[in-house]
Amino acid sequence: MSLYKIPLRDFQFVLHELLDTSAVMHSCGREEFDAATIDQVLSAAGQFAEEVIAPLNASGDEEGCQFRDGGVTTPSGFREAYRQYIESGWSSLACSAEHGGAEFPTAVENAVNEIFGGANMAFSAYPGMSQATYVNLRANGSPGLKALYLPKLASGQWTGTMCLTEPQAGTDLGLLRTRATPQVDGSYRLAGSKIFISGGEHDLAENIVHLVLARLPDAPPGVKGISLFLVPKVIPNADGSLGERNEIACGSIEHKMGIHGNSTCTMNLDGARGWLVGEPHKGLAGMFVQMNHLRLGVGITAIGVMEAAWQKSRRYANERVQGRSPGSVASADNIVLHADVRRMLLTQKAYVEGLRALALWSSQLIDLSHSHPDADARRDAAGLIALLTPVVKAISSDLALESTLMAMQVFGGHGFIRESGVEQHVRDVRIISLYEGTNGVQAMDLLGRKVLADGGLRMGAFIEQVVAHAQTHRTRPGMEEFAAPVLELARKVQTVTGELIASSMDDPHAAGAAAVPYLRLVGHLALSYTWLRAAQLALAKAGSGDPFYASKIATARFYLRRLMPQSIALFEEIRAGAAPVMDVAALLDAT
Amino acid sequence: MSLYKIPLRDFQFVLHELLDTSAVMHSCGREEFDAATIDQVLSAAGQFAEEVIAPLNASGDEEGCQFRDGGVTTPSGFREAYRQYIESGWSSLACSAEHGGAEFPTAVENAVNEIFGGANMAFSAYPGMSQATYVNLRANGSPGLKALYLPKLASGQWTGTMCLTEPQAGTDLGLLRTRATPQVDGSYRLAGSKIFISGGEHDLAENIVHLVLARLPDAPPGVKGISLFLVPKVIPNADGSLGERNEIACGSIEHKMGIHGNSTCTMNLDGARGWLVGEPHKGLAGMFVQMNHLRLGVGITAIGVMEAAWQKSRRYANERVQGRSPGSVASADNIVLHADVRRMLLTQKAYVEGLRALALWSSQLIDLSHSHPDADARRDAAGLIALLTPVVKAISSDLALESTLMAMQVFGGHGFIRESGVEQHVRDVRIISLYEGTNGVQAMDLLGRKVLADGGLRMGAFIEQVVAHAQTHRTRPGMEEFAAPVLELARKVQTVTGELIASSMDDPHAAGAAAVPYLRLVGHLALSYTWLRAAQLALAKAGSGDPFYASKIATARFYLRRLMPQSIALFEEIRAGAAPVMDVAALLDAT
Repeated sequence: MSLYKIPLRDFQFVLHELLDTSAVMHSCGREEFDAATIDQVLSAAGQFAEEVIAPLNASGDEEGCQFRDGGVTTPSGFREAYRQYIESGWSSLACSAEHGGAEFPTAVENAVNEIFGGANMAFSAYPGMSQATYVNLRANGSPGLKALYLPKLASGQWTGTMCLTEPQAGTDLGLLRTRATPQVDGSYRLAGSKIFISGGEHDLAENIVHLVLARLPDAPPGVKGISLFLVPKVIPNADGSLGERNEIACGSIEHKMGIHGNSTCTMNLDGARGWLVGEPHKGLAGMFVQMNHLRLGVGITAIGVMEAAWQKSRRYANERVQGRSPGSVASADNIVLHADVRRMLLTQKAYVEGLRALALWSSQLIDLSHSHPDADARRDAAGLIALLTPVVKAISSDLALESTLMAMQVFGGHGFIRESGVEQHVRDVRIISLYEGTNGVQAMDLLGRKVLADGGLRMGAFIEQVVAHAQTHRTRPGMEEFAAPVLELARKVQTVTGELIASSMDDPHAAGAAAVPYLRLVGHLALSYTWLRAAQLALAKAGSGDPFYASKIATARFYLRRLMPQSIALFEEIRAGAAPVMDVAALLDAT
Repeated sequence: MSLYKIPLRDFQFVLHELLDTSAVMHSCGREEFDAATIDQVLSAAGQFAEEVIAPLNASGDEEGCQFRDGGVTTPSGFREAYRQYIESGWSSLACSAEHGGAEFPTAVENAVNEIFGGANMAFSAYPGMSQATYVNLRANGSPGLKALYLPKLASGQWTGTMCLTEPQAGTDLGLLRTRATPQVDGSYRLAGSKIFISGGEHDLAENIVHLVLARLPDAPPGVKGISLFLVPKVIPNADGSLGERNEIACGSIEHKMGIHGNSTCTMNLDGARGWLVGEPHKGLAGMFVQMNHLRLGVGITAIGVMEAAWQKSRRYANERVQGRSPGSVASADNIVLHADVRRMLLTQKAYVEGLRALALWSSQLIDLSHSHPDADARRDAAGLIALLTPVVKAISSDLALESTLMAMQVFGGHGFIRESGVEQHVRDVRIISLYEGTNGVQAMDLLGRKVLADGGLRMGAFIEQVVAHAQTHRTRPGMEEFAAPVLELARKVQTVTGELIASSMDDPHAAGAAAVPYLRLVGHLALSYTWLRAAQLALAKAGSGDPFYASKIATARFYLRRLMPQSIALFEEIRAGAAPVMDVAALLDAT
């Protein structure tokens, strides 16, 4: 029984047919990423995922991480798998050539990240955090820090973390208390305690590079007084060899609902030596480079986990014999023939394939924002990816939760048994709606910072892009059924966005009360746009007789007819406004 | 910190004000259940729940059941708690007087079941299954079996189980293979293997009464050849003392996502002696007495678990300080002041209070169906409870899952940590959508057996009841806002029911493709009707100044404005029909 198999054909459809990755990278002056090269990477990633890390997924969950004497032991097999991971060059896939990286496009990097996340979320979160640390340091570090640390992070010889949260400061980082005191040599001494540090301690690598938020002595209060520091577990010598152990240590690890194989650490800094990254008091902005990288990254991990659960449930539905399908003459049929089971399978398929295309398109926007020769195109791509990042993070994780729960439902009572493997996906993926900013925080980021802040300009541009595309294609043969509902939804989002811009001027709670359903609504717009594009491509190739395209068209139809109507309810929920939410009487008896 | 506190005031509102339990029981010739008596029972149940079983909830989850040498050890403290449970008379609360029971109304019994389920679902599932066994045997057993077994089940000295599922036969019981061979003394010898038997083995009681489905040698194939047998773990002597050990034994227990403290057993019958319950080949109908009892029962347990999670999340929201609320001058506020957190709290409140009222009203219908002096009233109540049972089971468990996940979300990252206690509720409650018939099975039961089977007669009567009530009350002061949306929804359900009756004649898959969203739609109708009645009562008493009523009104408003719009989406999903679900191409590439 295969535990996880990469959806190679669908990756090819998205990367080659929908996104035309090679041509896009070519237009950015990068000619080496032809389809064959990308396919080689996908296949190699698939092999590593299927053969090396997927087999450690259930055992890693069962065994978990162990904390003893300040050290963390990862589950059996993780060390050896990590060694193979870095030896195969996966950690440096998208890193800069100057640090030893292969500079693959973000769209390919994130396809690979989906594969590893789907095969073993707990394992892949270690290098996932390192990648984000690399990106942060590359963007914000001094030349000296970069030269010393980036090649080690790229090679995977050292791993990275992000140390933000404290017991009293989670969503509200303005409340953080960790202090940094300047030293005469230009370094700092940090004191404080951080919690929920993913990969804060483990036995996979010889050193761990912590990026830590802390306050300088002269820091103003709140988020404007936060600075970013690099605090290595072991202080390297100038040549990169390991020097003395730093005063940062793991105090305990958390016992969690899921991702048992990934250590979640309390990190105590007791005069730990650190180096400033970027400007004093500008640490939060610096950290947001890492945070945004992670938000897209964990959204993509969620898609991988959905894929894994969807594979299990569709295999089960094709094997399990139970009940007679209407019109059948068998005493009982495979449950895949029952309408309600098909509904659950198609819901998963429509979500996972739609989200994959959306997330990899978003990844391509990052490539364009960095590398497109035209400055306007770079700026537009950057604007759109800023808008889409919270959407992809939140809707992928929310739908991954729904989808993995549905995969369990296909298994009936067997889904509740750990042996089935499917309930682990639910427990693992649950964290993604909670970390790197809860999905409520993503929703406020979208509505507050990305939509209301510019008077709806960027959102308007996105809606226009969708409308223009739908209008162009609706008159082509067979496209009306796909284009019409997308147009209708785009107009609804336009309406409600305008209403929210107006109501938020009068009511300070309007945005907060609307944010979560608004993000979901925009998510459905993005998904429906993605399915429209997929349907259009598949229709053009349906004559080939490849059942892949017929399935795409049918799945697009299922999404638009049976799932997209959810957006109407969201529209109504938003329009009901903040008054029912903020009514003081409502929670009076609940204190 | 309180782990669980009974929502006494809300139980009083539902039982005394909304359902007028005393008067209704009085009309059924039972005068002893005045409000004070009911309150005494609720308070005593609350004390037992809060002091005895709630403290064992987390430790029971951590420790789980242990299987060794054919025996099952329940978590520490469960044995002593069970001893207290039966000594306090909880097991016989609603049993017949002739078996030592107190004959309390089902509405009160189920209020108590919600309390125990909320405080400790894994523990309360043992006596919950015994109650269902009692009800089955009372309805179907011979006088001899009843005399021997019912007093012991009522007292809790022995517990009960239901043995249906086999590895190849879950939803489809027609596939079951366990055989029963008649013996000369009128008993039977049973051979076969059953799985997923809740409480199949444990250390709480000296004997376990299994009700087992099996086939007689001359049985026709499929569900029409299933008979029901009583198979005791220890065969009692005629005087009720324990005789010899029977050949039924636990082979293993399952490792599950949740309810770790409740044993889920594989039971092997190796020539076990059993006694026929009811008629040969009519066992499934007999077992449905137990199944229907359990379906309502587990729906009520789900409500208890939601209540527990909602209590934790509202306490956390009232204590956790993070972020500034718009207009506040504090550096940070309790998160209960943030609109999005309020949205999550009110969603839980609206669901749990609405479902409680719905489930206890359904319980009252059982009382009326048994005890009302008028035969027509008994028949009407029986018809309505048959309709509502799958609705309450499925919507309570589905919304409990959503609601407990939302409780986790209020906790942010802390919700993922086991110590918070809230993730356990998600893991525990997840089983309820899966067992006693998956929620897909409930939906087919509703749409197929309860709606289509009588041409929509019973459903039409229910819709009429809702419409008549809403029309009567909409003209009263302040009621328009509550009555109008309920009327609109009722008409939608009426429309879609008619459409489904028509389409299911042409398309054999129409019902299967619509069933789950249809049940959810009917669930929202039932909930909205319940909230309409609650709002109307609360409006009448709002002048009292009791903040409880103001909160009820505000919660009704929140439900009707912000949550009920979901029903529009369900309506559209149903109307999209079976074609997108049954499209052969859609899952072609997913085998």
